[in-house]
Amino acid sequence: MAESFVLHGAVIYSRDLKNIAAFPSAWVVCDGGISKGVFETLPDEYRDLPQTDFGNKLIMPGLTDLHVHAPQYPCRGNGMDLELLDWLDQYIFPEESKYKDLSYAKKAYSLFAEEMRKGPTTRACVFSTIHPEATSVLMDLLEETGLRTYVGKVNMDRNSPDYYTETTEESAAATRSWLEAVKAAGYSRTRPIITPRFTPTCTRELMCALGELAKEYDIPVQSHLSENLSEISWVKELESDVSCYADSYEKAGIFGEHTPCVMAHCVWSDDEELSLIKKRGVFIAHSPESNINLSSGAAPVRRFLDMGLHVGLASDVSAGSTTSMFSAMRNAVYASKLRWRLMDQSLRPLTFQEVFYLATKGGGAFFGNVGSLEAGYEFDAVVLDDTPFLTSREDETVLHRTERAVYLADQRDVAAKYVAGRRVF
Amino acid sequence: MAESFVLHGAVIYSRDLKNIAAFPSAWVVCDGGISKGVFETLPDEYRDLPQTDFGNKLIMPGLTDLHVHAPQYPCRGNGMDLELLDWLDQYIFPEESKYKDLSYAKKAYSLFAEEMRKGPTTRACVFSTIHPEATSVLMDLLEETGLRTYVGKVNMDRNSPDYYTETTEESAAATRSWLEAVKAAGYSRTRPIITPRFTPTCTRELMCALGELAKEYDIPVQSHLSENLSEISWVKELESDVSCYADSYEKAGIFGEHTPCVMAHCVWSDDEELSLIKKRGVFIAHSPESNINLSSGAAPVRRFLDMGLHVGLASDVSAGSTTSMFSAMRNAVYASKLRWRLMDQSLRPLTFQEVFYLATKGGGAFFGNVGSLEAGYEFDAVVLDDTPFLTSREDETVLHRTERAVYLADQRDVAAKYVAGRRVF
Repeated sequence: MAESFVLHGAVIYSRDLKNIAAFPSAWVVCDGGISKGVFETLPDEYRDLPQTDFGNKLIMPGLTDLHVHAPQYPCRGNGMDLELLDWLDQYIFPEESKYKDLSYAKKAYSLFAEEMRKGPTTRACVFSTIHPEATSVLMDLLEETGLRTYVGKVNMDRNSPDYYTETTEESAAATRSWLEAVKAAGYSRTRPIITPRFTPTCTRELMCALGELAKEYDIPVQSHLSENLSEISWVKELESDVSCYADSYEKAGIFGEHTPCVMAHCVWSDDEELSLIKKRGVFIAHSPESNINLSSGAAPVRRFLDMGLHVGLASDVSAGSTTSMFSAMRNAVYASKLRWRLMDQSLRPLTFQEVFYLATKGGGAFFGNVGSLEAGYEFDAVVLDDTPFLTSREDETVLHRTERAVYLADQRDVAAKYVAGRRVF
Repeated sequence: MAESFVLHGAVIYSRDLKNIAAFPSAWVVCDGGISKGVFETLPDEYRDLPQTDFGNKLIMPGLTDLHVHAPQYPCRGNGMDLELLDWLDQYIFPEESKYKDLSYAKKAYSLFAEEMRKGPTTRACVFSTIHPEATSVLMDLLEETGLRTYVGKVNMDRNSPDYYTETTEESAAATRSWLEAVKAAGYSRTRPIITPRFTPTCTRELMCALGELAKEYDIPVQSHLSENLSEISWVKELESDVSCYADSYEKAGIFGEHTPCVMAHCVWSDDEELSLIKKRGVFIAHSPESNINLSSGAAPVRRFLDMGLHVGLASDVSAGSTTSMFSAMRNAVYASKLRWRLMDQSLRPLTFQEVFYLATKGGGAFFGNVGSLEAGYEFDAVVLDDTPFLTSREDETVLHRTERAVYLADQRDVAAKYVAGRRVF
């Protein structure tokens, strides 16, 4: 499906955390799904490839959303005056339970998938619900979008409402049969990921069973970690033998030891937990708006970066209100600034360059060689029409325009999108 | 110009800080520019008025932006990695100095005015630059939008760059001649407001001269107060005889003693300053995104409300990135949550109901009986098309829809707007 072609426009991408490359006019070359790089003058060898000229529009790498709850999409922007545990009880568990009904799942997931198709996200780690059939509905729809995603059937066998829970055996068996169904479906872009909701709703027995499945099927793991102070206290009550919250995953063998692992939040991870994250190469899905909305706090991302941890950004819909990764970027800056000013002046705020890196290369790395337009990366690109934000200034650079887009753009400003060399919008 | 008519739609407005009135289907009646109230059944006496049916769209009061810098509009979303004083030097003063050129002023202000016309703001307190002619250009353009605004020529006679400053005499004289030009222009919707930039750039002599002009012309005053810790230290160095930053305005008679006064920020106002704000009935223009972007902090709005101070919301473009007051509302919630979690758990976060009140009745009060659809208020209304945000949920209320719009909407979602009984968009 991947094609070979050339795009022209204003081009921007991160070289590394501190350096951004920006060109007012350049060519980007895709060769069978892989980028050949960015050129200010198109090399002769690519002159015969089909060209699309996007004029002055901004061409940037695709954005990766490392943590999003598809079934919560209908709840976005609601119940924002509650904290995590109350919000789950009053809004989220009732909504997620509806997906047992496949006609509801199809209706709701169709809206989510369509927004994901048109928005700036090219890769995502997605939570479904506990329902295996509805999870397959979601995977079918995401496969059609052309995005590359990991999707997980959620597991929860304790501390869940009566109307939305599983027994340990049911949960493990349903996960296995869902994994078999995924195999049979033969998706080319949509992959399964083991998804215990979080320690409070999963017994150790279930966690260990999921660990076995992750190893057996060789698939990664996603969950939540150290989001909220009440949640952390609760984990310590529930799991008396763990040295830190992460250790409850580690003890089940699902904390990056055998297959890759991505954990949302890490707002309050202590030194020991951060060391374990580093040791296991676990990715942190920093979800700044979610952490603000649920009054969880502001994660010490500067510290994560100084430690060399793997960090990407996440919308965390619907604790985050929008799937737009532009919002995730600006909220990452917001949270880091207030954290610096109000709490800890040892950790400098994040810059625009840094959050742009996190949304592209940072999160993209969970998917392999993803998140850049440099040669050798899988060709994911977003074409942004920032015409509505252009101003009277004559000295505006591509950097100015992109920083502004981080503050002002949303899904509606995406003019075109390519994933792994295929135009999907 | 004001007309009499009836609108139909889903209607929402604040009764007070804690209570919102919401109707899935109701009629709003405008009689010669004044609201007659909201009715679930249209009273017979209004049945002959022209009706516009907005179906299921949301009709809410117009939103008031208590502090916005029109000439900074081209800089929005840029330079956000700087703090206040560096940002002024590197981005803002160079941009504002361009408005000496009336052709640039016309070009730049036209874009600003057009966005204000189409966006959700119906009332605004607007800063111009030091240039009297360019200020008149801005007022001409805002008059055409139909919005009701206060617009101020900025004054600055010290600590300003050579290329963008006035002498004390020039500043006072230019202000007087600008006020005379405003009188002659005979605007019906656009009023002048005395606008010392802030204490660091205005000598006491100039402040006092401005105080005399405010009294003589009987017009209000706007400025900045206690935004940033470095700025506050600087004021204490510059003004050895003041007991608090606000006292530098009070000593010049422009802190609400003679005419109304609105001050942006008050992030770090101390007890004495807050007492003076209360005594003088000064309005606080809470500018949450600006305060985050410039790493200034998060104003203690809960405390302002508990003290019974007048508070409204502000975009503070371009320290705030957008003119959208939906953004100001959500950022007010964000800032209050991180302030609570990271700094001071004695001040509860703001709720959706509270920020909705602040954006409507709170700020509207600076303009008189403004900010509600209740009987007796000037008829300012925004019709919001939230179709893009509708979901698969069947139990969504007008309150759910409005809270979601606060998180997801921007200028593009406004379907119609009325100011003082006149449709302007």
